[in-house]
Amino acid sequence: MTHHAINLKEKLSLFSEHWQPKVIAELNDYQFKLAKLKGEFVWHSHPETDEAFMIIRGQLRIELRDGYVDLKEGDLYVVPRGVEHRPVALEEVQVMLIEPKGIVNTGDANEQDLTAENEVWI
Amino acid sequence: MTHHAINLKEKLSLFSEHWQPKVIAELNDYQFKLAKLKGEFVWHSHPETDEAFMIIRGQLRIELRDGYVDLKEGDLYVVPRGVEHRPVALEEVQVMLIEPKGIVNTGDANEQDLTAENEVWI
Repeated sequence: MTHHAINLKEKLSLFSEHWQPKVIAELNDYQFKLAKLKGEFVWHSHPETDEAFMIIRGQLRIELRDGYVDLKEGDLYVVPRGVEHRPVALEEVQVMLIEPKGIVNTGDANEQDLTAENEVWI
Repeated sequence: MTHHAINLKEKLSLFSEHWQPKVIAELNDYQFKLAKLKGEFVWHSHPETDEAFMIIRGQLRIELRDGYVDLKEGDLYVVPRGVEHRPVALEEVQVMLIEPKGIVNTGDANEQDLTAENEVWI
């Protein structure tokens, strides 16, 4: 019996919309999600959890209230719980997010228009 | 204030030993670890947790009691909790592991010689 790997670039080729994370795997009560980001997101924080960003392709700036972090392909960054942040991508960036199941992408921001549906698998 | 990304390849250049995972980041009570693997590991399982493998460079076969999974660069695979597995790498492979803090690399196998020290950060 052959088991199957999950190839990140293959999964990323299956969708094109921005700011709509797709679940690709679970690790206990955590999820791996892929997303394509472009433009400026909303300032928000996740009071209940850290959030990991891994850059698969492109560049992402995460603005923080006291500065920023610039991420490129192969970079990992963990936004600590409760820390306000705003992802900004001048060009499209492809990222993997790792966070507990059920986390809302807009966190504590009151931005229903930007809030993505959860539990969308590809 | 500029915050700093964690670059996986840069971190991987800092060590050369095999089967000795190094912690690079924490996400709540989980850790991201980098490891270089070569050869055959021991059959083991982690009765208390799933374990994620992400391939940064090279190829890895994970043998399972009912088959195997072949992983190449950019692949992700989650070994479910309690599932016996044995990583095998003909040539060196560079991987990122994601799992809860404190997990012993040899799991339930009684193999002290192969058991790596935990909480080694790079």
